[in-house]
Amino acid sequence: MADQLTKRSENYSQWYNDLVLKADLAEQSAVRGCMVIKPYGYAIWEKMQRILDDKFKATGAKNAYFPLFIPKSFFSREAEHVAGFAKECAVVTHHRLMNDPNGNGVVVDPEAKLEEELIVRPTSETIIWNTYKNWITSWRDLPIMCNQWCNVVRWEMRTRLFLRTAEFLWQEGHTAHATAEEAQEEAKRMVHVYADFARNYMALPVIIGHKSPNERFAGALDTLTIEAMMQDGKALQAGTSHFLGQNFAKSFDVTYTDNEGKQQYVWATSWGVSTRLMGALIMAHSDDNGLVLPPALAPIQIVMVPIYRKPEEMAAILEKMEQIKKKLEAMGHSVEIDSRDNLRPGFKFAEWELKGVPVRLAMGPRDLESGTVEVHRRDTLEKVTMQLDGIEEHIHGLLDDIQKTIYDKAFAFRQTHVEKCDSWEEFKEKIGTGKFLLCHWDGTAETEQAIKDETKATIRCIPVDSFVCEEEGKDIFSGKPSKGRVVFGIAY
Amino acid sequence: MADQLTKRSENYSQWYNDLVLKADLAEQSAVRGCMVIKPYGYAIWEKMQRILDDKFKATGAKNAYFPLFIPKSFFSREAEHVAGFAKECAVVTHHRLMNDPNGNGVVVDPEAKLEEELIVRPTSETIIWNTYKNWITSWRDLPIMCNQWCNVVRWEMRTRLFLRTAEFLWQEGHTAHATAEEAQEEAKRMVHVYADFARNYMALPVIIGHKSPNERFAGALDTLTIEAMMQDGKALQAGTSHFLGQNFAKSFDVTYTDNEGKQQYVWATSWGVSTRLMGALIMAHSDDNGLVLPPALAPIQIVMVPIYRKPEEMAAILEKMEQIKKKLEAMGHSVEIDSRDNLRPGFKFAEWELKGVPVRLAMGPRDLESGTVEVHRRDTLEKVTMQLDGIEEHIHGLLDDIQKTIYDKAFAFRQTHVEKCDSWEEFKEKIGTGKFLLCHWDGTAETEQAIKDETKATIRCIPVDSFVCEEEGKDIFSGKPSKGRVVFGIAY
Repeated sequence: MADQLTKRSENYSQWYNDLVLKADLAEQSAVRGCMVIKPYGYAIWEKMQRILDDKFKATGAKNAYFPLFIPKSFFSREAEHVAGFAKECAVVTHHRLMNDPNGNGVVVDPEAKLEEELIVRPTSETIIWNTYKNWITSWRDLPIMCNQWCNVVRWEMRTRLFLRTAEFLWQEGHTAHATAEEAQEEAKRMVHVYADFARNYMALPVIIGHKSPNERFAGALDTLTIEAMMQDGKALQAGTSHFLGQNFAKSFDVTYTDNEGKQQYVWATSWGVSTRLMGALIMAHSDDNGLVLPPALAPIQIVMVPIYRKPEEMAAILEKMEQIKKKLEAMGHSVEIDSRDNLRPGFKFAEWELKGVPVRLAMGPRDLESGTVEVHRRDTLEKVTMQLDGIEEHIHGLLDDIQKTIYDKAFAFRQTHVEKCDSWEEFKEKIGTGKFLLCHWDGTAETEQAIKDETKATIRCIPVDSFVCEEEGKDIFSGKPSKGRVVFGIAY
Repeated sequence: MADQLTKRSENYSQWYNDLVLKADLAEQSAVRGCMVIKPYGYAIWEKMQRILDDKFKATGAKNAYFPLFIPKSFFSREAEHVAGFAKECAVVTHHRLMNDPNGNGVVVDPEAKLEEELIVRPTSETIIWNTYKNWITSWRDLPIMCNQWCNVVRWEMRTRLFLRTAEFLWQEGHTAHATAEEAQEEAKRMVHVYADFARNYMALPVIIGHKSPNERFAGALDTLTIEAMMQDGKALQAGTSHFLGQNFAKSFDVTYTDNEGKQQYVWATSWGVSTRLMGALIMAHSDDNGLVLPPALAPIQIVMVPIYRKPEEMAAILEKMEQIKKKLEAMGHSVEIDSRDNLRPGFKFAEWELKGVPVRLAMGPRDLESGTVEVHRRDTLEKVTMQLDGIEEHIHGLLDDIQKTIYDKAFAFRQTHVEKCDSWEEFKEKIGTGKFLLCHWDGTAETEQAIKDETKATIRCIPVDSFVCEEEGKDIFSGKPSKGRVVFGIAY
């Protein structure tokens, strides 16, 4: 089973693709660039959704739903936004098919051309701000904090399952505020919600920071990001939160009467994470045997495999396993007993390793006699035989330990792959070897672009909570003065 | 507030539309036929989703996600399906916009024409069966039971919020089985899941039955439905479950090797409910004061309104209310205290009635002194003053009572609006007056069509669990022999 996986050391990118397919997470569909998310992959996404949704609601955000389609003209209203989003997109031009007069199935009915083309949403700022216009009159109507879970489409040329697909699933929060300060605070609050989720549930150490102007969301005054390091040392942008200023309010004429009776433009934020998180989760922790899932997001936390020769042995072992399962479920854990009778234990072991189940229990007739069970942890691949007495409490604690160990491992990896760099020659040598480099930057878009052109590296963020280094220095490329170091990396 | 609602007796259809808008459930968007589901409306839909999702999973179904787009050619593969679905739909023909050479915003880039047009899914049988083809080899791969929560688009000409919109939200279950019997059982199981949900959560008495061939889903051998009666006596199809036979398996060449080594085509079902349920919920129970929500689906089950003149009065009342709120929340109820200081109690009362909150508590300084509270129930509009002692347990029971009372009222209404009819003259007189008529039918599509042409009435279902009447008789229109009565009604 794991033999079928390309090794990370051979071809990291192929390893990832193999893993997504073989662990039954997702696959390409018949539609170019659109994926099918299979039940096992979707179960992980559902866990992510549930946890994030609760966190959003705790901040006061409410879910709503806005249309899939956006009139083409809406994109022209916000100048930067159109440049960023309205180019590669799915355009609906007709609303009817008809039988082919030549008898070959169905064809587009030329009579059914839309007066104005509709764009399948690549993001919803425009349609939402056009709606907010009618919802906002006075300061008493603010803040408005809506989130939607939905699909979006961006016509990507090169796609990779979860990481970059033409259609993907995401959530997008859109908030409206009376003051710039309040909106900025909201943008900050949400990037911290994302960071907490990444760290505590995905076991993913992330750096929080500001994007440089070049890398900002189209239409934003400030973009906050969480940046993660994958096992190949590349950066993955895992979530963003934008302070949009009054750009969309002005484009869609959204004003409110303040408590002194004056008309003011409304201040905006938007924030989102997508099924790309699945890619980050998979790439950050998994190994050559398959997925490694943090227990907090594993659809199955514990799998039990009975080992037997005779049917009566199986019956006795399964009975014992059912008892353990009930107790673990009562503690809130998800458990599966793999009683398939057409597969050998070794095959099952490999399959559950491939699927990243954190804990595996195996029990044979001798275990049953001696009151023991074999406990295998997926993260370290360690195996120990333990007494059945108190096994549920042990596993409960073990899951916590696995969660922590996975985080610690990813954290240690990152710490050894981030370094300061003050020489351009050294930068060029090292940046392609799977590292984040902390360098001085003169703050100009030109320098950033020049560095990107030469090395493919971009400023992942100007960090605010890890690797913060505010000190005088000289730009690594231009030699001009700099006020602090930023994080450079090669991004997915 | 309620004054702004059209009365049901004046114009039922306008009343419905007013209510959806004024209770903040949904509104039209800038895109023709597409709605915005507002937070209060979406909160009800989320409750529906959560309950249904748990029920689906209890049957063994798993969630997954399939592409939004379907290649045009897929629709031509299943002959009936193309006729039913591929006509009025959103067609994506291009994948890029470009700056207008004349400087007027953006236009479709003629160079970016797709080789094959993509249809925004109106339902997903075709793309899913094209996917299942790769998932199914042996009988061991069966059954497959996937569900997806998603958006679909059908280019409706006349739209009404929730009831009929171009884009709507729904779930669609698609299952694959080894035998016809197993698939038929699945179709039956799921229509019962829908009926249980409608009856026990939506407080909606529904009739379960088979659709006549004319009204079947395009491509199905049998369609099971739940049919509800609205307050105007019209029928609303609230959910359907289809036995699709081997039609899609044959169109997409999906076979399995049975346990004797023979190749067999796979058997299919599909089943779905949509945001149309919101329309059913609203229309079935609400009154001229606004929404009436069954407690099981109310986003806010209890609202508390403080009544005071002086700030210190308010503080004392709010403190007491917080105590009650905590206890109610611990019992699993959702509670809101309306402490807005710019609105009078009477205005708040009307607003919460409009929004259908099942229980309202009002408390003034005298109540506080005497240890009492005014309890108002939305369904009957009854108001009683009660002792605070034990109030939480009382409300807990009251919510159950309201749930039951709402169901009983709808049930009693339906029972008095269903009658047997054996005369064509009587049928023509009565069918437009808001009734379901139980009539003999000869089983032919021609007769059904003739009746529809003359009266707009359709066979809502051949009932299987309410109003079942298998007896010899004569068709009400053709006079030909009939083996039982079916339910006729005018449908939404």
